[in-house]
Amino acid sequence: MSIRKIVADLHAELVRYNLVVWTAGNVSGRVPGEDLFVIKPSGVSYDELTPENMVVCDLDGNLVAGEHSPSSDTAAHAYVYRNMPEVGGVVHTHSTYASAWAARGEAIPCVLTAMADEFGGEIPVGPFALIGDDSIGQGIVETLKGHRSKAVLMQNHGVFSIGKDPRDAVKAAVMCEDVARTVHVARQLGQPLPIAQDDIDRLYDRYQNVYGQRSPR
Amino acid sequence: MSIRKIVADLHAELVRYNLVVWTAGNVSGRVPGEDLFVIKPSGVSYDELTPENMVVCDLDGNLVAGEHSPSSDTAAHAYVYRNMPEVGGVVHTHSTYASAWAARGEAIPCVLTAMADEFGGEIPVGPFALIGDDSIGQGIVETLKGHRSKAVLMQNHGVFSIGKDPRDAVKAAVMCEDVARTVHVARQLGQPLPIAQDDIDRLYDRYQNVYGQRSPR
Amino acid sequence: MSIRKIVADLHAELVRYNLVVWTAGNVSGRVPGEDLFVIKPSGVSYDELTPENMVVCDLDGNLVAGEHSPSSDTAAHAYVYRNMPEVGGVVHTHSTYASAWAARGEAIPCVLTAMADEFGGEIPVGPFALIGDDSIGQGIVETLKGHRSKAVLMQNHGVFSIGKDPRDAVKAAVMCEDVARTVHVARQLGQPLPIAQDDIDRLYDRYQNVYGQRSPR
Amino acid sequence: MSIRKIVADLHAELVRYNLVVWTAGNVSGRVPGEDLFVIKPSGVSYDELTPENMVVCDLDGNLVAGEHSPSSDTAAHAYVYRNMPEVGGVVHTHSTYASAWAARGEAIPCVLTAMADEFGGEIPVGPFALIGDDSIGQGIVETLKGHRSKAVLMQNHGVFSIGKDPRDAVKAAVMCEDVARTVHVARQLGQPLPIAQDDIDRLYDRYQNVYGQRSPR
Repeated sequence: MSIRKIVADLHAELVRYNLVVWTAGNVSGRVPGEDLFVIKPSGVSYDELTPENMVVCDLDGNLVAGEHSPSSDTAAHAYVYRNMPEVGGVVHTHSTYASAWAARGEAIPCVLTAMADEFGGEIPVGPFALIGDDSIGQGIVETLKGHRSKAVLMQNHGVFSIGKDPRDAVKAAVMCEDVARTVHVARQLGQPLPIAQDDIDRLYDRYQNVYGQRSPR
Repeated sequence: MSIRKIVADLHAELVRYNLVVWTAGNVSGRVPGEDLFVIKPSGVSYDELTPENMVVCDLDGNLVAGEHSPSSDTAAHAYVYRNMPEVGGVVHTHSTYASAWAARGEAIPCVLTAMADEFGGEIPVGPFALIGDDSIGQGIVETLKGHRSKAVLMQNHGVFSIGKDPRDAVKAAVMCEDVARTVHVARQLGQPLPIAQDDIDRLYDRYQNVYGQRSPR
Repeated sequence: MSIRKIVADLHAELVRYNLVVWTAGNVSGRVPGEDLFVIKPSGVSYDELTPENMVVCDLDGNLVAGEHSPSSDTAAHAYVYRNMPEVGGVVHTHSTYASAWAARGEAIPCVLTAMADEFGGEIPVGPFALIGDDSIGQGIVETLKGHRSKAVLMQNHGVFSIGKDPRDAVKAAVMCEDVARTVHVARQLGQPLPIAQDDIDRLYDRYQNVYGQRSPR
Repeated sequence: MSIRKIVADLHAELVRYNLVVWTAGNVSGRVPGEDLFVIKPSGVSYDELTPENMVVCDLDGNLVAGEHSPSSDTAAHAYVYRNMPEVGGVVHTHSTYASAWAARGEAIPCVLTAMADEFGGEIPVGPFALIGDDSIGQGIVETLKGHRSKAVLMQNHGVFSIGKDPRDAVKAAVMCEDVARTVHVARQLGQPLPIAQDDIDRLYDRYQNVYGQRSPR
């Protein structure tokens, strides 16, 4: 499947899991073997996304191919690809529960085994940053570089997630909202029980190294 | 696309984003170049709306064309069109989270960058007003005239949103519920961090003047 | 449309508005001009309901026609039809927010204009009652007879709603959950503002006598 | 219908009732008359499940037939089948509200008649257990053996439910999340009223012995 089609199609997962309203969320994917990435066009409805109307940018975020403007979040995606060569996909959403933690500037504590599996610990908060230059991208990279978590809660803003490919980054965005919601609900009526760091480490190690090994998707 | 079709079709967005139940919500649009607007017929299900069964009213809310009665909220829509010539679309819903803020008579504070973008600050509360005369329309216009926000929380009632055209007003209704929900969720576990007024102003200015400029929808 | 088809089809509204899971909720409708009513068969999925598999009972709840057993809530529906001749439709659900108020035994206060319109005031609580005899039916009738509200929150159980026909009762069930949710959300962050009794009366009177007069559905 | 098709199809109910995201949840069913069970393949999307890609395992969890790896939760399912011969179906989810109770290690109190019907009392908490050996299976069996409840909240993890067949176990998973949500919502604004133990017993006894007797599904 072409990277254009992969990126176009994955937006349906943001819709399916209610991570986005209107046009406020986007997926991008690095073009294999090139210093380019494919990203959602700005202001186009999720219903109307096709491989053809996806936009191609270079790693400085300049438009290389496409009839529409790239997503207004393109500079942040570009900064991540430029500075994290291991990243093959980036997702941005304002999903409700994750954005609520972000609005308080509060990391999501790791109190669910699914969270230990996927994120290896807490989901961290990144700095408040204005759109318009590299501030958001820098905040993402400073927070996630060397961190187990594939998702960052950008303060007062929303979520950026990364992955080895676009599907992996979408999975992280979906799981981030899922655990953000469950931990929120748990906290509403008291304190969730902690998971010992040792157990978090074991779960994370197993999930990254064993799970799904035979079925790569 | 005809204004009748635009208005009929946009009701599907209210359904898609769960802003309405049964028949309790409506979209209207000013007829370009005429002192008329198109609005939802009263008591007709969203499934059954067509360009043909939309109702046309003059700016006093009198029925001009249509086999059904106009929406019971027609007087409020008409008052807005009469008094805010820049408005081309009006939406009314009882969407859950926005109506909850309205029930407490509490404005939604601007603690999300998406809110700064779309509303330029808090979403204000309008007065308690009874249906049956111009009270609701007056409350909307007094609150929104000269205000950055495109949405008002009418006390103990619900949301009215405005836009340069019906699609713009629907977007404001969708975003209003989205931020009402996220800020509510954030507040459930503590206090969201404030965004500095300067930053709100920069975000609002950029979004209104830069975003989507090349892709007008 | 036959009363069998009306009742079968209306179950889709319970599904659409998430008022039911699995098979836990039911609609019935009085057969015009006869001492009979049509009700959901017991334990059949909403997907599989047809006019043909609906069940017909007399006003004592005895099976008159149908290949399946009638809903396990049939005795309660029958008691209502027997004792409230003005009622043409009955709905029962365990919808989440209404059932939560019911679990606390707490009436929903009238703090929304939509609630004043539809229910004319608070939605009251009925007694705790066991299934198996007329206790539930008696609790419904004692609570709703002479009350403006078309819905009752049966303590620790769920909602019963009534109407002049099955569609009207389904509308009441949908609106009951909608206002139960909005008032719940409002209360989570403080106290909703009260609406003056005079204003509630005016809204109720207008809605019952004016709204939708020209469009009878 | 073949057990492979039954198990494959039932995953659609997990999706319909929002009990799962991505691939995080699974259904299994004992093969009638054999020491085998059918389970979801690991890492395959719910959209892509077919009778053919289901996996067959023996009661030690060893792969007997199938082109994919079995679900990573297979050892827990196998342990249950090995130690509870009356169980014909097992379901695992991380459904939001049930997992929130599990994160606090708090049983769901029986304050709804629907809960008395289906679970006969509270839904209990099982121990914290790591994946990788029989710990999870043992925790499930120790908690549910001799207990009325068909569902257990595994601490910091999620829900396992059992049934006489896979459909029965899915019903328990659906009802568990439904009551977990309703009781959570009730508790947000105060204390739900208790139901007397005698009444819980009567409701449970009636539901298990009378309800749906004539319509076995």
